[in-house]
Amino acid sequence: MGSTTRRSSDSAARCPLGTCSFPSASRGPLALDGRAYYVPMATTEGCLVASTNRGCKAIAESGGAVSVVLRDGMTRAPAVRFATAARAAELKFFLEDRANFDTLAVVFNRSSRFARLQGIQCSLAGRNLYMRFTCNTGDAMGMNMVSKGVQNVLDYLQEDFPDIDVISISGNFCSDKKPAAVNWIEGRGKSVVCEAIVKEEVVKKVLKTNVASLVELNMIKNLAGSAVAGALGGFNAHASNIVSAIFIATGQDPAQNVESSHCITMMEAVNDGKDLHISVTMPSIEVGTVGGGTQLASQSACLDLLGVKGASLETPGANARLLATIVAGAVLAGELSLMSALAAGQLVKSHMKYNRSSRDVSKIAAA
Amino acid sequence: MGSTTRRSSDSAARCPLGTCSFPSASRGPLALDGRAYYVPMATTEGCLVASTNRGCKAIAESGGAVSVVLRDGMTRAPAVRFATAARAAELKFFLEDRANFDTLAVVFNRSSRFARLQGIQCSLAGRNLYMRFTCNTGDAMGMNMVSKGVQNVLDYLQEDFPDIDVISISGNFCSDKKPAAVNWIEGRGKSVVCEAIVKEEVVKKVLKTNVASLVELNMIKNLAGSAVAGALGGFNAHASNIVSAIFIATGQDPAQNVESSHCITMMEAVNDGKDLHISVTMPSIEVGTVGGGTQLASQSACLDLLGVKGASLETPGANARLLATIVAGAVLAGELSLMSALAAGQLVKSHMKYNRSSRDVSKIAAA
Amino acid sequence: MGSTTRRSSDSAARCPLGTCSFPSASRGPLALDGRAYYVPMATTEGCLVASTNRGCKAIAESGGAVSVVLRDGMTRAPAVRFATAARAAELKFFLEDRANFDTLAVVFNRSSRFARLQGIQCSLAGRNLYMRFTCNTGDAMGMNMVSKGVQNVLDYLQEDFPDIDVISISGNFCSDKKPAAVNWIEGRGKSVVCEAIVKEEVVKKVLKTNVASLVELNMIKNLAGSAVAGALGGFNAHASNIVSAIFIATGQDPAQNVESSHCITMMEAVNDGKDLHISVTMPSIEVGTVGGGTQLASQSACLDLLGVKGASLETPGANARLLATIVAGAVLAGELSLMSALAAGQLVKSHMKYNRSSRDVSKIAAA
Amino acid sequence: MGSTTRRSSDSAARCPLGTCSFPSASRGPLALDGRAYYVPMATTEGCLVASTNRGCKAIAESGGAVSVVLRDGMTRAPAVRFATAARAAELKFFLEDRANFDTLAVVFNRSSRFARLQGIQCSLAGRNLYMRFTCNTGDAMGMNMVSKGVQNVLDYLQEDFPDIDVISISGNFCSDKKPAAVNWIEGRGKSVVCEAIVKEEVVKKVLKTNVASLVELNMIKNLAGSAVAGALGGFNAHASNIVSAIFIATGQDPAQNVESSHCITMMEAVNDGKDLHISVTMPSIEVGTVGGGTQLASQSACLDLLGVKGASLETPGANARLLATIVAGAVLAGELSLMSALAAGQLVKSHMKYNRSSRDVSKIAAA
Repeated sequence: MGSTTRRSSDSAARCPLGTCSFPSASRGPLALDGRAYYVPMATTEGCLVASTNRGCKAIAESGGAVSVVLRDGMTRAPAVRFATAARAAELKFFLEDRANFDTLAVVFNRSSRFARLQGIQCSLAGRNLYMRFTCNTGDAMGMNMVSKGVQNVLDYLQEDFPDIDVISISGNFCSDKKPAAVNWIEGRGKSVVCEAIVKEEVVKKVLKTNVASLVELNMIKNLAGSAVAGALGGFNAHASNIVSAIFIATGQDPAQNVESSHCITMMEAVNDGKDLHISVTMPSIEVGTVGGGTQLASQSACLDLLGVKGASLETPGANARLLATIVAGAVLAGELSLMSALAAGQLVKSHMKYNRSSRDVSKIAAA
Repeated sequence: MGSTTRRSSDSAARCPLGTCSFPSASRGPLALDGRAYYVPMATTEGCLVASTNRGCKAIAESGGAVSVVLRDGMTRAPAVRFATAARAAELKFFLEDRANFDTLAVVFNRSSRFARLQGIQCSLAGRNLYMRFTCNTGDAMGMNMVSKGVQNVLDYLQEDFPDIDVISISGNFCSDKKPAAVNWIEGRGKSVVCEAIVKEEVVKKVLKTNVASLVELNMIKNLAGSAVAGALGGFNAHASNIVSAIFIATGQDPAQNVESSHCITMMEAVNDGKDLHISVTMPSIEVGTVGGGTQLASQSACLDLLGVKGASLETPGANARLLATIVAGAVLAGELSLMSALAAGQLVKSHMKYNRSSRDVSKIAAA
Repeated sequence: MGSTTRRSSDSAARCPLGTCSFPSASRGPLALDGRAYYVPMATTEGCLVASTNRGCKAIAESGGAVSVVLRDGMTRAPAVRFATAARAAELKFFLEDRANFDTLAVVFNRSSRFARLQGIQCSLAGRNLYMRFTCNTGDAMGMNMVSKGVQNVLDYLQEDFPDIDVISISGNFCSDKKPAAVNWIEGRGKSVVCEAIVKEEVVKKVLKTNVASLVELNMIKNLAGSAVAGALGGFNAHASNIVSAIFIATGQDPAQNVESSHCITMMEAVNDGKDLHISVTMPSIEVGTVGGGTQLASQSACLDLLGVKGASLETPGANARLLATIVAGAVLAGELSLMSALAAGQLVKSHMKYNRSSRDVSKIAAA
Repeated sequence: MGSTTRRSSDSAARCPLGTCSFPSASRGPLALDGRAYYVPMATTEGCLVASTNRGCKAIAESGGAVSVVLRDGMTRAPAVRFATAARAAELKFFLEDRANFDTLAVVFNRSSRFARLQGIQCSLAGRNLYMRFTCNTGDAMGMNMVSKGVQNVLDYLQEDFPDIDVISISGNFCSDKKPAAVNWIEGRGKSVVCEAIVKEEVVKKVLKTNVASLVELNMIKNLAGSAVAGALGGFNAHASNIVSAIFIATGQDPAQNVESSHCITMMEAVNDGKDLHISVTMPSIEVGTVGGGTQLASQSACLDLLGVKGASLETPGANARLLATIVAGAVLAGELSLMSALAAGQLVKSHMKYNRSSRDVSKIAAA
């Protein structure tokens, strides 16, 4: 533990944004899938770390969180055009014919020894065809790997479809760094669900609120409120805060925070309404543990601290998937804590109704 | 110039992510609204800076870009509940009655000497009422200022509407750090449009493509492709890359990259099809030049370099608005360059059709 | 009553789709705002009428439903273009300047003695400007009235802005007959909320389920389920069924069912969890009682039956607004009944778990 | 031909809305895939039929339209819940395991001799699982068939997953009669693309405009305008008008117009910019030729007129798919004509700039 603390404070000195905080053992690490993680968050908002800490504490005292990786595949969707839509449809049927898949996979997978083509989803806009390639990319976030594989297939296709007109290696059906329903529904990168059952007494003691208030708040704010706002994948309180803080600390692409923070937070009363079941479902967490910013000193140290540095030798992709679950676990903690602060803030305020001070309330309104 | 270069390399040493690049004079600064800016970008993706540089060069050689701030207002939308929808509607009508606005504004504006309430937009979900307050926040990004003002109004309303049940200071109709149509349509923070007319010869010489290919690519990728993907505010190539790089370099909240990178990129042929009119329209750029991360050493240096450090004494809010236009200008450069690379990449590839090398093509596929 | 029954069966003979059903008094009319309405529904789905009847019965036995018209304004948004975005922004500022509004309103309102311009909302896509005009249109649905008023303003503007290039009288920011967030957030036609508190015993006796099951089902299906599906304004069970049936029966434009059926259905337990508060919030119900299909024999008879035929002499627009509240009230009944059937169906099925018959369950699954 | 005219006028007498128009030979039938169709449209808007006729004429004079059915599958998505998300994920993996698919298909297909399970797409919201079943349904629209098949599978699963808690036979991930991205991206019912190349002289002579104006208008209105409006699947001018008119005339469910009218209209200049390539891509046309309203006298007559009445004996589903292509073909004609009217209207108006008459212009603004 001491060594962990040392290493974290070391890396903190060299950390992005000049400030990098780690929940310390005493304040409660993230208890996830039977292990404890000291989650690095690069942020200038001190209260964000404190809030996440509180969520970690509540989760730990309730037996920890559990996560499942539902899907793992990076995507790239080139746009090609033909003289007619009928011809574009021919390529769609060709790509969807399982008889052709094995050949296309061999061509695609030449891009890397880790690349494994999973599937190709096609959509047309008249004679323009968008082909969304999905593939495993080992422990790399994998965009370049997928782009190379796509290029291999595009080159290969030009023999059977010489009339193909490649408009762009990316046709925005991918969809990278933009809020798009295709990622929300199909997933991109790692799709993760993370849950915890928080005990009644922990909700009271640690979170200073009650189960009924949290369930009601989640329905009115995270579900109905976001529905009224016309949200896309934004059915949460502040997933983006936690995702971007961890992304910067661990050398991920901060621009991919856009879709990586897609999240629906659910809160339900269980055990005869006594305890709280909370979950976050995040379909497109785009992370890697090799390449890009992961190689920089402090980011590399943060990954090392989590035990996910570099490529997994025994199971390619295991480190990146583990990192994705840690991101989801930290988001779970962040949602639990902020939602409790909001719920409690209102209780507090009702007490304050007669003296007009509202300092504390406005301070906790991070999202 | 020399001094600028010195200062930029200084701050680079202390810059977020350990690396911070500035377009240097020789490689072309961002020419915007008659001035030249050295745009700080904190990124681990070197080619992103190089690409933006190329876009800056093309814009500069075409006479520079022009921007307009269309709107400026930060928002916060609490959720309150009544026993009935009929009663919730009464508060809606009360808030929309111009006769009450002046009083509400006085109450709201007590939160800060910079706060100026602009309006309140109400939406119902049955008996739950979401009230979206919009206000000027001077040179601060302004979330806390708005939250305080909202709290003032909520406290005030409890006298006329004692039956009001405040569910949350934020009901997600704000909408903060989530992709939501309300920000795309109503705007949040600064709404900016930025444009440039790029000359035919510059498109050829600097961008290595032609006007017709760019116009066509923009229609198929940024408009139709994003439409097919079910995009919300994501009708661009990679606005998020530039926005997050500048946000981190200048101490903005990187989590707000989600909505701040909402952007529709338009490309049209003008002057009898010879030249290119390119524009980016970004309705919700959330930036400030005081408070939060802007006070850290390197971030403060970056703001200073742009001449937007701290609060504007003569015109409150002028620095933050100027920073927003610089963000939009840099996005314009980034879109111009990547789109050209994609268009050219395809031309290149058609030449390469017979020798299968695709290294360069896949490398430029940043989005 | 007898005469009503006679007239309804008469008009039934001449009714769209050859079949037109009316809830009869014995089976319970729609009790709304202190009156009882026999709601005409033109549909070939008999169980739809029966289901709506059951909802009406439950509402009536609970004291009736209450509705509020939150907004009333038809819209049309032309697209115009200028040489530059800067120039397009000038027109935006001109239109938003309250000093110009009165003049523009006079020009606009020349289109009809009922037209009352309410406001103009502008959005840019670079140098293309979309101006969304909203206005009262009396008892007409009002599209033609608004189009004429818009044309008046476009002609008028050509004097101050001779460089305006009118691309289209409709630029799709209106947005007519398409699912679009702008209607969901801003409203189009009539925005109506309708609610009822259904007593515990009525939920048991009439709806054959219980309050807790309904609240839970609404959260999982209408809120979370639609969120997962990437719904836009579709946070309900089957509003579209009722809306289109009434639209066809009363001579509305059935193509406008697309946005007129936007609806968020909320269900909350009240009175210490004993009773059910149900509401439907529908922001864009586009109806009229004069013009178009309302003049045909059977449709006119249906409007007459509801007491909303033709133009309201005392209060222009009152008939159309009343019709909108009846649409919302019928949707409330339809939601209440189908949701109960789904909830009960599951209870039934749990009983049937050992004998595999599932006939009844599949039959009630209308949406 | 004479007999056709007779029969059409006959059925017109008994037609929904009391009025039913058929394009007559002289005014040009819909030329689609080498055949000519007299498309029945039940509408009270006379100009809608006239406008569609003009589009049909332009298409016929250009050699006709071509269509392709890209996909054919009706969907239903029940919502089930488990004690934990981890357990819900187990069912997801079970359903996605191809080893289990054949068994599940056998169980599902018992619902009808036409039912053919195609696949199951799963999404989670924490411990709540939404399973979207897709299957062929022969010539029936198929909702009841799918619901029965889903019920079979739910009953079957209760043996391997006794802890499954079926919340609803429909969990809104289907998604029926609501605008939802899942239909736009995955398709529902028939996914059809239809295209035509309209010759330069036909654009001039019949449509009274020019190719360049149409291409530009489509980009600014149907693509950029809808993007600005936050449209979902609404990248067209007025597909809903044609879809609902044919739906009512042929006994389809008019409430399904909501998603059946999802459409992206593309217009591109081809043959060195001389001719126009126009296409409509419609992913979720929900139609059948047996059951429901198709059995009523006038609706049955309309289907007979099109040669798609009842079930196809040789190829189950062929009639319903053919009907879907006719819907798309009629939408193509409708888009071509209205867009031309809008484009021409503006040309006219520019001529009228000096005399203020705007009658004609406002009349053509149907959408």
